[in-house]
Amino acid sequence: MSFTKAASDEKAIATIRVLAADVVAKSNSGHPGAPMGMAPMAHTLFSRFMNINPAHSKWINRDRFVLSNGHACALIYILNHLLGYKDLPMEQLKQFRQLDSKTPGHPEHGHTEGIEVTTGPLGQGFANSVGLAIAQANLAATFNKDGFPLFTNHTYMFTGDGCLQEGISSEAASLAGHLQLGNLIALYDDNHISIDGDTACSFTEDVEQRFLSYGWHVSHVLDGDKDLEGLYKAISEAKKVTDKPSIIRVKTTIGFGSKLQGLAATHGAPLKADDIEGVKAKFGMDPKQSFTVPDDVYAAYKEIADRGAKADKEWTELFKAYGDKYPNEHAEIARRIAGKLPEGWEKALPVYQPSDAAVASRKLSETVLGKVADAVPELLGGSADLTGSNLTRWGNAVDFQAPSTQLGDYSGKYIRYGVREHAMGAIMNGLAAYGMHIPTAGTFLNFVSYAIGAVRLSALSQHRVIWVATHDSIGLGEDGPTHQPIETAIALRAIPNLMFWRPADGNETSGAYLVALESKSTPSVLALTRQNLPQLEGSTIEKTSKGGYVLVENESADITLVASGSEVALCNEAAAKLADKGIKARIVSIPCFSVFDAQPIEYRLSVLPSGKPILSVEAYSTLGWSKYSHAQHGINTFGASAPAKDLFKKFKMTGDDVAAKAEHVAKVFQGQTLVSPVELEAKLMQY
Amino acid sequence: MSFTKAASDEKAIATIRVLAADVVAKSNSGHPGAPMGMAPMAHTLFSRFMNINPAHSKWINRDRFVLSNGHACALIYILNHLLGYKDLPMEQLKQFRQLDSKTPGHPEHGHTEGIEVTTGPLGQGFANSVGLAIAQANLAATFNKDGFPLFTNHTYMFTGDGCLQEGISSEAASLAGHLQLGNLIALYDDNHISIDGDTACSFTEDVEQRFLSYGWHVSHVLDGDKDLEGLYKAISEAKKVTDKPSIIRVKTTIGFGSKLQGLAATHGAPLKADDIEGVKAKFGMDPKQSFTVPDDVYAAYKEIADRGAKADKEWTELFKAYGDKYPNEHAEIARRIAGKLPEGWEKALPVYQPSDAAVASRKLSETVLGKVADAVPELLGGSADLTGSNLTRWGNAVDFQAPSTQLGDYSGKYIRYGVREHAMGAIMNGLAAYGMHIPTAGTFLNFVSYAIGAVRLSALSQHRVIWVATHDSIGLGEDGPTHQPIETAIALRAIPNLMFWRPADGNETSGAYLVALESKSTPSVLALTRQNLPQLEGSTIEKTSKGGYVLVENESADITLVASGSEVALCNEAAAKLADKGIKARIVSIPCFSVFDAQPIEYRLSVLPSGKPILSVEAYSTLGWSKYSHAQHGINTFGASAPAKDLFKKFKMTGDDVAAKAEHVAKVFQGQTLVSPVELEAKLMQY
Repeated sequence: MSFTKAASDEKAIATIRVLAADVVAKSNSGHPGAPMGMAPMAHTLFSRFMNINPAHSKWINRDRFVLSNGHACALIYILNHLLGYKDLPMEQLKQFRQLDSKTPGHPEHGHTEGIEVTTGPLGQGFANSVGLAIAQANLAATFNKDGFPLFTNHTYMFTGDGCLQEGISSEAASLAGHLQLGNLIALYDDNHISIDGDTACSFTEDVEQRFLSYGWHVSHVLDGDKDLEGLYKAISEAKKVTDKPSIIRVKTTIGFGSKLQGLAATHGAPLKADDIEGVKAKFGMDPKQSFTVPDDVYAAYKEIADRGAKADKEWTELFKAYGDKYPNEHAEIARRIAGKLPEGWEKALPVYQPSDAAVASRKLSETVLGKVADAVPELLGGSADLTGSNLTRWGNAVDFQAPSTQLGDYSGKYIRYGVREHAMGAIMNGLAAYGMHIPTAGTFLNFVSYAIGAVRLSALSQHRVIWVATHDSIGLGEDGPTHQPIETAIALRAIPNLMFWRPADGNETSGAYLVALESKSTPSVLALTRQNLPQLEGSTIEKTSKGGYVLVENESADITLVASGSEVALCNEAAAKLADKGIKARIVSIPCFSVFDAQPIEYRLSVLPSGKPILSVEAYSTLGWSKYSHAQHGINTFGASAPAKDLFKKFKMTGDDVAAKAEHVAKVFQGQTLVSPVELEAKLMQY
Repeated sequence: MSFTKAASDEKAIATIRVLAADVVAKSNSGHPGAPMGMAPMAHTLFSRFMNINPAHSKWINRDRFVLSNGHACALIYILNHLLGYKDLPMEQLKQFRQLDSKTPGHPEHGHTEGIEVTTGPLGQGFANSVGLAIAQANLAATFNKDGFPLFTNHTYMFTGDGCLQEGISSEAASLAGHLQLGNLIALYDDNHISIDGDTACSFTEDVEQRFLSYGWHVSHVLDGDKDLEGLYKAISEAKKVTDKPSIIRVKTTIGFGSKLQGLAATHGAPLKADDIEGVKAKFGMDPKQSFTVPDDVYAAYKEIADRGAKADKEWTELFKAYGDKYPNEHAEIARRIAGKLPEGWEKALPVYQPSDAAVASRKLSETVLGKVADAVPELLGGSADLTGSNLTRWGNAVDFQAPSTQLGDYSGKYIRYGVREHAMGAIMNGLAAYGMHIPTAGTFLNFVSYAIGAVRLSALSQHRVIWVATHDSIGLGEDGPTHQPIETAIALRAIPNLMFWRPADGNETSGAYLVALESKSTPSVLALTRQNLPQLEGSTIEKTSKGGYVLVENESADITLVASGSEVALCNEAAAKLADKGIKARIVSIPCFSVFDAQPIEYRLSVLPSGKPILSVEAYSTLGWSKYSHAQHGINTFGASAPAKDLFKKFKMTGDDVAAKAEHVAKVFQGQTLVSPVELEAKLMQY
């Protein structure tokens, strides 16, 4: 297919540019320069290549478009307006960056129809697109059959200088090259401008050579402001390269058309009114009219939408015919698109008795994954080069690898992410965003923090991803304080819409997975031990699913001990020692703050009632535990390097230490009635 | 200078290899493979190039050695033992990874003499070394004079595959290439093994080409196991390239000498006893002896130490002569080496009156930096491409740039970091580690989280670095939830030995800088607003330096409002409204939890006494505030995109909202005496 210029092309590009200036000016906030500069590449991509159905935005085989430089979001809002997405009438363009609009300052997945992933924090979209591409490759290898090319979409991604400077994009690009993801095509908006001015001040690497080093197909379009045919040819050529991801460096002029074009001044602030009038005049539009779209531009974009609707319809027919021939696969695809877990999957979760052996919770997690992987085929596992430590790879797993490597194939469900935690987090978001996978991946809990930029976007974007975060405390031992989390738990607990789970034994590990897998719109981090944990009397999957519960009740208790993870067993030990001294303790386990906090207040108050003192015990910073307790036992310094048993002694995390602390607390508050922090909350709730 | 092989070379290399196996076997924990593989490159570097004085490890012009692949730390411990560092007698090698030893599982700056930076979390050391190199270049350009080459040292860094996979190393490498840091020489241990096995499974990029793209000088040594002359020549050649950083790819065999050499099995677990015996036999050593060092190997390393001691002595004489000719510069260098701030520097801090105008705290910070930069010449500023937003560049600043770019020079004190937050954080650690700079750098508070891996190492390594973290809440407005911190404050507050400051006005901003600059061993993050803040009645620099204080006292108060940053003024507004209703409020400002927590308990109790209810107010997650309050007003969801004033209304962060909440709290607890959480702590302290 060769390029034929349409009469509406120039007009459409001018319309996008002018609308971008109008949108930002109206809200008096935002970034006009990049959308104005990227209008030609966007128009060429959408008019000639994108396979999307705006009337059915969730069509599974649609091409994905990712605007990694999310500050340029006026561009995608304008495109989606022209395409007729119902979330984007002209009124929404006028509400850009205003309260409760569909056009927030950066694109948010789940907030606005037609936005594939949340971008803005630089580099995230780049890595998300690698996840989207992996998802497609995996589904194609798993379900496509002769004559039934069900999964064929491409992922197109726009990226700016900022994204390419962020380390996350290097991680993701290196992995994408390794995986030979030919379905991924990036267009790099090389406008030579960043916020501090010309990129000459900080970014002078040879980007093309860098991507060649990663194994990408690399090309360029030197006049991205005007050369539509060049853009068309570069994208066409990239589509032909099926064994490498592609990046097309497109030289553009930021703020094209403005008096300030090519300058950083057009990046992050509205153009002046007279400048915008000049832009309109230059492009043959009425300088006094704002938010106008010529009819033939609407018509051209309706053609794109119609083309996509037709493709969607053809796909639906293909899928139906596929179902006649491959009913099982058809049913599985339909189920996964609907986002339903297989009936009865949860029966695969192991249940433990107190008489069962003590096992490290990373090992308990491995058992869960091994049992669940067959029952829930949408699991897509991986690790950031710690497979043998995280125990994230189930027995019969096949690696997701390019077939030519002979190390696996694209139907494989285990990703060797390499030592690339941040990209791993963002790739999981992309995998989840595609809509047919549940990504799980491992690293040490301490190094989830390397990926926290992606983790908070999992939560904001409501992606069900599961981090298998092992080596969860000083219990990891000799690796020392560089590897021992202290602040990590509270940092994760404070992220809205994220579940931080720290199971205490086998039943709690199963319970954590139960809730994590069934929570379609909430990511989870599972903190798991390196060291063995005994199976507790009183733990069940059902109680765990409440986030917190009374493990050991004692109506006449002198003190309540509340803990998570490995410290729950410590409390058991301590309670036995306290009993010898005539001090009675009840024990509460809180494997997940946010799930517990979501329980009815009466339940929470029954778990942590007023009266006797409550002492929290956790081998982390005590910060945050005052919401449940009157006294806190924890580690408010960095850890140390030594065998785990020595560390637990050094940091006073033994049954003896907990007993001594509890005895002290009980004595100090003997005879007093203390108000539980939960009761304070309960009283305040009674408006 | 050409290479002459010494009789002791092979023996020294064999000794290092065997000791590495012994060290890890004795502790039954650690990583023998990499030290065994890197022994030849380490020996060549140390014997032929390193200029260090083990008897005076802090000699300022010493060459810096950074082991970025810190898990290989047995190597540096062994080298430093051979060199005679007092922290490393043989006994310490036998105490590897044991409690309270000088040989922890990963090298820790400040814990063990001769360790330049803390490594282990992969990629950190790579970026630290860029900071060390910048520091040297800056000092050379600032202080070296004709005939007085005071600052001439090189920074040598070893890196493995893991470090190169991490995004942080890409960020740092791109910047180092841009800055043309010819004083930085990396040796890449290309052993083709990572934890998951052969790097073929995840890391197949062309590393040499990648570094060429960054503008580095690139070479390789194909037999790094044996080719000492090749190593010597490659390092010599790299030293000659003075306008580019260098990387030498050294092909090595992990676990060289072991039966398992070349396999992942040698990476992270001890070799078996019989294997170690075989290694010793192969290298001509007694298989039954452990921890032995031939006398001629000690002698060879004593020569290295003597060479360094001589160089140190010559340098000291040079510095003395320099002082005769340049007494002012001499005094400044001496002062900075001693780590003393200039006498009376704090007089430069601005003081405000309530009648002064409302100003954004990012702007207040700019004023401080402008005034302090002249008084404290060791400040070295920068921003991750947000200079105009962070306001981090003082008026007369010159950019730190390679002179050939004509955009600045190496004496410049403002670094254009580009959009590279994680590398920026680790580069600041390197700058601080050199010992003569106080690095400050800016980004949005939300994106400090991209760098949290480096931030926690600032704290662990006790580096005085200062983050200028602007746009500190929903107050940033239209950029929306992707840019609005919610969990960031508590995450930073939970890091041990880190000060998270959130000043409420001009005096608190000055106070935060006062403590941050005077805390030699503690990093700070300053959270600063985009929006204007009024100057408060009652704030002072001195009170701020206590971390928390009573801003408005009221002996007969019905409620205490406790807040930080922009919400303190909200409490003032609320108090006025409450007064109209006959409810009396006192107001407490806590700009820094950790500094407040370090005050005497009596003081803290006077600030937050028992009796009436205490309500916290902060536009973040409420998690953590229960330690100071009975009720919490905050934002436990993500933010939104809209003008700031609309957001403060939406999230109930106005004076009216706070007053309404306070009224409710006061009513609910009317007539009750509540125990302050601080009093709970006080009681427990009385053992």
